[in-house]
Amino acid sequence: MAVLTGNDYRESLQAFQPEIYVLGERVDRVWEHPLLRQTVNHMAAGYDLASSPESNGKYTTWSDLADEEVPRLQLHVQTSLEDATVKAGLTREISSCRICAGCMSNMLSVTWAMIYDLDQVHGTDHFPRYKEFIKNLQKNCQVFAWGMMDPKGDRSRGPSAQEQPLDLRIVERRPDGIVVRGTKVHTTYGPACHWVMVVPCRALSKDDKDYAVSFAVPIDAKGLKMIARPSPGPSRPKDMESPLSSRYLGVEAMTIFDDVFIPEENVFMCGQWDQAVKLPVYFAGMHRQSKCACSAGHTDLLIGAAALLADVNGLSLKTGHLRDKLTDMMMAAEAAYGCSLGAAMQGAKHPSGVYIADALIANAGLNHIRNRLGHHLATLHDFAGGLMVTMPTEADWNNPELRPHIESALKGASKYTTEQRLRAMNLAQDLAASRMTGSLLGFTINAAGSPATNKIVAEKFYDLETRINTAKEIAGI
Amino acid sequence: MAVLTGNDYRESLQAFQPEIYVLGERVDRVWEHPLLRQTVNHMAAGYDLASSPESNGKYTTWSDLADEEVPRLQLHVQTSLEDATVKAGLTREISSCRICAGCMSNMLSVTWAMIYDLDQVHGTDHFPRYKEFIKNLQKNCQVFAWGMMDPKGDRSRGPSAQEQPLDLRIVERRPDGIVVRGTKVHTTYGPACHWVMVVPCRALSKDDKDYAVSFAVPIDAKGLKMIARPSPGPSRPKDMESPLSSRYLGVEAMTIFDDVFIPEENVFMCGQWDQAVKLPVYFAGMHRQSKCACSAGHTDLLIGAAALLADVNGLSLKTGHLRDKLTDMMMAAEAAYGCSLGAAMQGAKHPSGVYIADALIANAGLNHIRNRLGHHLATLHDFAGGLMVTMPTEADWNNPELRPHIESALKGASKYTTEQRLRAMNLAQDLAASRMTGSLLGFTINAAGSPATNKIVAEKFYDLETRINTAKEIAGI
Amino acid sequence: MAVLTGNDYRESLQAFQPEIYVLGERVDRVWEHPLLRQTVNHMAAGYDLASSPESNGKYTTWSDLADEEVPRLQLHVQTSLEDATVKAGLTREISSCRICAGCMSNMLSVTWAMIYDLDQVHGTDHFPRYKEFIKNLQKNCQVFAWGMMDPKGDRSRGPSAQEQPLDLRIVERRPDGIVVRGTKVHTTYGPACHWVMVVPCRALSKDDKDYAVSFAVPIDAKGLKMIARPSPGPSRPKDMESPLSSRYLGVEAMTIFDDVFIPEENVFMCGQWDQAVKLPVYFAGMHRQSKCACSAGHTDLLIGAAALLADVNGLSLKTGHLRDKLTDMMMAAEAAYGCSLGAAMQGAKHPSGVYIADALIANAGLNHIRNRLGHHLATLHDFAGGLMVTMPTEADWNNPELRPHIESALKGASKYTTEQRLRAMNLAQDLAASRMTGSLLGFTINAAGSPATNKIVAEKFYDLETRINTAKEIAGI
Amino acid sequence: MAVLTGNDYRESLQAFQPEIYVLGERVDRVWEHPLLRQTVNHMAAGYDLASSPESNGKYTTWSDLADEEVPRLQLHVQTSLEDATVKAGLTREISSCRICAGCMSNMLSVTWAMIYDLDQVHGTDHFPRYKEFIKNLQKNCQVFAWGMMDPKGDRSRGPSAQEQPLDLRIVERRPDGIVVRGTKVHTTYGPACHWVMVVPCRALSKDDKDYAVSFAVPIDAKGLKMIARPSPGPSRPKDMESPLSSRYLGVEAMTIFDDVFIPEENVFMCGQWDQAVKLPVYFAGMHRQSKCACSAGHTDLLIGAAALLADVNGLSLKTGHLRDKLTDMMMAAEAAYGCSLGAAMQGAKHPSGVYIADALIANAGLNHIRNRLGHHLATLHDFAGGLMVTMPTEADWNNPELRPHIESALKGASKYTTEQRLRAMNLAQDLAASRMTGSLLGFTINAAGSPATNKIVAEKFYDLETRINTAKEIAGI
Repeated sequence: MAVLTGNDYRESLQAFQPEIYVLGERVDRVWEHPLLRQTVNHMAAGYDLASSPESNGKYTTWSDLADEEVPRLQLHVQTSLEDATVKAGLTREISSCRICAGCMSNMLSVTWAMIYDLDQVHGTDHFPRYKEFIKNLQKNCQVFAWGMMDPKGDRSRGPSAQEQPLDLRIVERRPDGIVVRGTKVHTTYGPACHWVMVVPCRALSKDDKDYAVSFAVPIDAKGLKMIARPSPGPSRPKDMESPLSSRYLGVEAMTIFDDVFIPEENVFMCGQWDQAVKLPVYFAGMHRQSKCACSAGHTDLLIGAAALLADVNGLSLKTGHLRDKLTDMMMAAEAAYGCSLGAAMQGAKHPSGVYIADALIANAGLNHIRNRLGHHLATLHDFAGGLMVTMPTEADWNNPELRPHIESALKGASKYTTEQRLRAMNLAQDLAASRMTGSLLGFTINAAGSPATNKIVAEKFYDLETRINTAKEIAGI
Repeated sequence: MAVLTGNDYRESLQAFQPEIYVLGERVDRVWEHPLLRQTVNHMAAGYDLASSPESNGKYTTWSDLADEEVPRLQLHVQTSLEDATVKAGLTREISSCRICAGCMSNMLSVTWAMIYDLDQVHGTDHFPRYKEFIKNLQKNCQVFAWGMMDPKGDRSRGPSAQEQPLDLRIVERRPDGIVVRGTKVHTTYGPACHWVMVVPCRALSKDDKDYAVSFAVPIDAKGLKMIARPSPGPSRPKDMESPLSSRYLGVEAMTIFDDVFIPEENVFMCGQWDQAVKLPVYFAGMHRQSKCACSAGHTDLLIGAAALLADVNGLSLKTGHLRDKLTDMMMAAEAAYGCSLGAAMQGAKHPSGVYIADALIANAGLNHIRNRLGHHLATLHDFAGGLMVTMPTEADWNNPELRPHIESALKGASKYTTEQRLRAMNLAQDLAASRMTGSLLGFTINAAGSPATNKIVAEKFYDLETRINTAKEIAGI
Repeated sequence: MAVLTGNDYRESLQAFQPEIYVLGERVDRVWEHPLLRQTVNHMAAGYDLASSPESNGKYTTWSDLADEEVPRLQLHVQTSLEDATVKAGLTREISSCRICAGCMSNMLSVTWAMIYDLDQVHGTDHFPRYKEFIKNLQKNCQVFAWGMMDPKGDRSRGPSAQEQPLDLRIVERRPDGIVVRGTKVHTTYGPACHWVMVVPCRALSKDDKDYAVSFAVPIDAKGLKMIARPSPGPSRPKDMESPLSSRYLGVEAMTIFDDVFIPEENVFMCGQWDQAVKLPVYFAGMHRQSKCACSAGHTDLLIGAAALLADVNGLSLKTGHLRDKLTDMMMAAEAAYGCSLGAAMQGAKHPSGVYIADALIANAGLNHIRNRLGHHLATLHDFAGGLMVTMPTEADWNNPELRPHIESALKGASKYTTEQRLRAMNLAQDLAASRMTGSLLGFTINAAGSPATNKIVAEKFYDLETRINTAKEIAGI
Repeated sequence: MAVLTGNDYRESLQAFQPEIYVLGERVDRVWEHPLLRQTVNHMAAGYDLASSPESNGKYTTWSDLADEEVPRLQLHVQTSLEDATVKAGLTREISSCRICAGCMSNMLSVTWAMIYDLDQVHGTDHFPRYKEFIKNLQKNCQVFAWGMMDPKGDRSRGPSAQEQPLDLRIVERRPDGIVVRGTKVHTTYGPACHWVMVVPCRALSKDDKDYAVSFAVPIDAKGLKMIARPSPGPSRPKDMESPLSSRYLGVEAMTIFDDVFIPEENVFMCGQWDQAVKLPVYFAGMHRQSKCACSAGHTDLLIGAAALLADVNGLSLKTGHLRDKLTDMMMAAEAAYGCSLGAAMQGAKHPSGVYIADALIANAGLNHIRNRLGHHLATLHDFAGGLMVTMPTEADWNNPELRPHIESALKGASKYTTEQRLRAMNLAQDLAASRMTGSLLGFTINAAGSPATNKIVAEKFYDLETRINTAKEIAGI
């Protein structure tokens, strides 16, 4: 099958009957729901980029597996330095216009490496199944949501030592498959996907073997429930008032597996607890290299919004402190992007063929830009002025009695109309004072690892011993 | 009249018929409107503190003018170091539980000083009128909103040089008063007040003399319109989901003066353009001293929420990096509070009797804590984990089919129920990922001066010449 | 005796024969030694300020104990808010011209409080002895160095549990006094003082009772040795090249007690291990309030040097980024000073009569400014340009063949001669690239507590429980 | 000729009779001078790495020009991504043990590109001469110092508009060559090189054509004088006390051209003022890519020293705040290194064959790490404790009467002797409190461009317009 268009994709969703809830109510038509359609738009935009003739193949690449072109960010197995750098470039480009580039292909690739290892160590045959699954996915041009994070409960104990089991686990092994129960949290984009792919999220012990499970399942499998949360909370998206979040926003979901049956051919890991530790390690290099580029793109978006605000307010960008703050943001974006490319450069090929970027550089770059995000959002407030949080709403503007008063009172730089100034202010508040803020700040945690996670990676991979020995040698010890 | 209770105050609002709009629609009963009642609650809570017998007079003080006790934060003229430090203490205390202590008394005091000066220089009799107005305000225990900021339009030009006049100005002088036209923005708490008091917001030139105007006007004066904006944008406040913002939140308003008549006795400045420059200067010391204490209080609130999150997540506060981040926040709060007290200490008495805190220290303290706010909010995300922005909503929790799944999946530390954990997460998201975020970040601009404003104050008052001379002397130049 | 002049003080040193070593060699005449005289200058300057008629009593205050005027910073017991704020002002003023104001009086006051407590708890009579000692010190206008810090050895064990005892301890108790052995480190200004006063530096246990010792001893007592270290390392101070450090620099010393006898009347604590914990607590409030003011003064010095550098380089201070950096430094100085005053304001009177500033605010203010010091030094490099570390030396300048070349090559702004430009550069390198750098950075540790120490104070005194309870209440838990 | 050994190089210096001054005195034997030999050591170490059989060719590469192997960091023309990344790796490795890797090859490559352009535009024949010069340099295995920075005088005017000319310029054009006069500053490593290569340092105008000059000259050419400055100032390097700076330290020099004749064949630019602007642009990408790697290496050195200090002080690296600070430093190092690789990755080939890294990413990475350097040095103080600046000196330790006292008093963790602890402390003070500090801080300016320079690059190359357009599109403007 050729690469689907956005419309093909929207239609393809109608073949599924998933059990999805939003604000406590069952959803019928995901693609039309006022709080879910932004996510569907997002996914559709990815399909459109890949299928559009104008893109000239920029967003697709050849798959030997499917023997056809596939969308690069969604369905490609990353196998080379070139793949990693092209991905970084596309990710930054897309993230600078929306809020997420949607790199599901990272998840596809890290799972590829883990399952390959698993077969090598245990002599099992999960890897061929996994390849077959991916091949079909590519051929059908379908996407999966990623079920990695377990809720974890009491973090001082492993999954099998909780008072009540809550993480996802195998509860029954049948000849033709397994039955699973439990929950995965942070299933980003879940309701807009065709499949859910599940993997373990942390190192496991022997007692946790039922928790060592990986599989793929159609989104409307019996017993699978999703509670979607329009991140960061319900609101009423509007064209002028929420120019970005009313169009694109990644929904988050909690996925409940209420005794779901998974047929044998879709089970990729089943009890091999010793291999679970691999996934977070591969993930740390693979996905955070993307996150560096993605954060650079978000910063580009904030920079553009800040510069536009200065302009509509009649402030020259040559003004010392504005210029200084903008260049600080530019350098933050470039440093993050530089680390994305640098992590790619320092990457290595896994025996399975997957190319994994360097986790140390990727985490360092991500940590740098994340530490500045709160400050960048505050800068947007600084450029906008108080009006950003005190201006009249879109509804006030649409009231014909009020509009003339607003129009004359809130005129800024002469080259912009008042409406244009309000639109710029609204973009800023959408980014830095409203739904998006939480989304941006929150994103830096749930998709990028917390600061503490990044530090653990740094500690793990940095060669401290050599540094101490050098110090001893120089000091004469 | 004795100090009003919260209920007295709510009733007192019914005597007014202001023309207020929210989301484009005219509001009838401010005190019951779903997006305004949080502001009324806030104001009422201030009345309750002052009138409650349990407070033992902590929130009131004697007014010689009114010859009775008046609420300290709302209606007292600050005349001593003691006043300034007591105010700082109360402000921090209240801000650590809500989001604003509501120090209208600062505005009252700075206007007091400016109008006193005006009479001294011009030989006019505005000051007695102002005192009379304040005396009646105190006697009736009424509050005013502060109309200081003009929209300013093209910032490179003064008010009289705009293409179309937009700032508030006198359009007619009559024997018995004046008629004013134009707009004031950032009228915080406007809809919940009895009066609006107007002052100029910047230095003016001779051509701007019609913009040199100060007066008080009842909120329901003919021609006065307010467009209120539930900061930072409309949402549906809920008990569990918005535990703080559904109860207390400061509404912002734009106040339009559509040819409003102000009788002579309520006019406090009328054309004395040379005196307009005083107000921002007095304001810089008086109000930012409060903002330091207020920001310390907000930080206390964030600290409490962060520590609670760690606890519900089962993380020990003894964990190195959590402890480090908490103590960083503690020290930020204490440094801001220290500067509030230090600015008070370094203050001076104005000839009118008003005691004004030191602007240099107050701005420095505010700048310090403001620079950290973005980071503190990011810390809250760090302590909460991704769940803060991906958890199910209150409506999901209230769905009896979903609740058992949520209840078991999201259990955290054993000493808390899942509901309690969700409540803690919701407080955090209310503070750091949702309406409040914009409110907190925005507040640091519209009520505290932008970072650039703070720097201008620093440059203005810091004695750089002496420092250069010392350097020359030491260098031997 | 009246307050001594600087010259009186220099002469007074000649009555002592201390055993002092510098760079491994015994020193005869401290006041003339090329690496010690800067410290003597420093102390003498303090005497001159206090005794000079032009000072008009600004640096002295009345002592009831001595029944005469005494130098405030050196010999006064702090008993009031006024004392604390006057001290802050003088400390900032002096530190902005030199590198230390020399507030020995803080040590005098904290010891006063500890010894008072000791007598209250143990019914002993050390406090009258201590008062008598202070009275004589004041009458003779002599100064003491402070022996607080023990070397501590293995920090995971208490003093009595070390493999080899090393901290200062009582080794013999005689009817007429005690014999002490061991070492105190960081005896700042030691060689330039008449006495050494010793106190314990940390909480002690019952086993450590021999380490619970406080006393005063003349600097030339038999068995007392001092190894002085010209901080941060030996160099050849020059007039042009080290304009500040060749004149004033605080020497650090290690003080060895090689079985020194202390007569009964000079012993202030002798085995009361339970009281040792008091001193660091009182010290945290008392001395760090001074350090806030002192750090503000140092920052003033850096600001003056930075502004001068811009000027000699022909750069306008109106240039955006220079201005921004200068105002950042100004605000850092003011925030630290604000916390010094705020900590004073929030202080309390100890039963002994001593007025102790608030430890929480003082530590927070100090932590803020310390965190910026490295950055401020880097800013000086930024303002100076590379020339600061690559320019010819004073000796090159003094070579008549080279001078004309240097003179023409290194001319900067036309209003300064090349020599003046070089002098400004040299001041900057003295402050930020040479001896002083280590001194400034090091000072923030040995005299102000490490960052970790400050955090421990913050944790100890901040009321976290209340904050958590507020959070619970708001969250509905 | 094969690659020289360190000893060959030392001997090769004896063939030159340069006119060099240190501390105002003429130097005879550079390689033995107590304040210059560290620089010679440094250079010799580079030769040893390249020539040593154990290096297995790691530090050399093939030159088609010379038709033999040449030292990579000193003499190679960078022509590929591989060259750029290998250079980054070697630079970090070497900088983590010393203080500079000495990448003269960067200067060689940027000049290569500029001179190529010049011939293309002007139809001249400088490029063949330059290639011939480089070929001979490679064949003789000689090194050059880089004379780029002019003193500039009054920065608001160009070189030809100064009151007195001071920058380097052509004063006479003869048939067989040119005579030059003026000064170059920041000639790093000058006294230890065989040649000086000169290029212009900024954009020039038509009036400045005599300042548009590039050439190579032997270090002992008649009329060439160097005033060397042991950075950051003279001291007495000692084995134990200055373990690093007594062995390796880059001397800085001011190079005076007192009417020096340059024969035609060594003149590479002569009046083509329009081409001068190229050099700083090529330099910004080429050299700052190295500086990112170099700064990562320095940070590695600081990390090793910090970890060693914790260990000798008996502090566990698992302690929360120590661990946090170390991982912060690790991530800073990795982010800088990531940007070095990323800038290489994003680089491009110049028509002359030279491969130039991306200036935007290189400057961003450098800015990030530089901003942290002051803080990292402060961290070293934090880990060391006050003792770092108060400990006895090496001379005290060598005094047999004092040593036993020091030995027992300053014992730390039981696994280290006191001497070892002192050695670790001395390394830290060499790095963070003494000569090196200035060197490290200063280096970030004179060799890396000031922060303002980095920002100018960011502004120049960042595509702000696209970002503003994206913002407009999203906002609906």
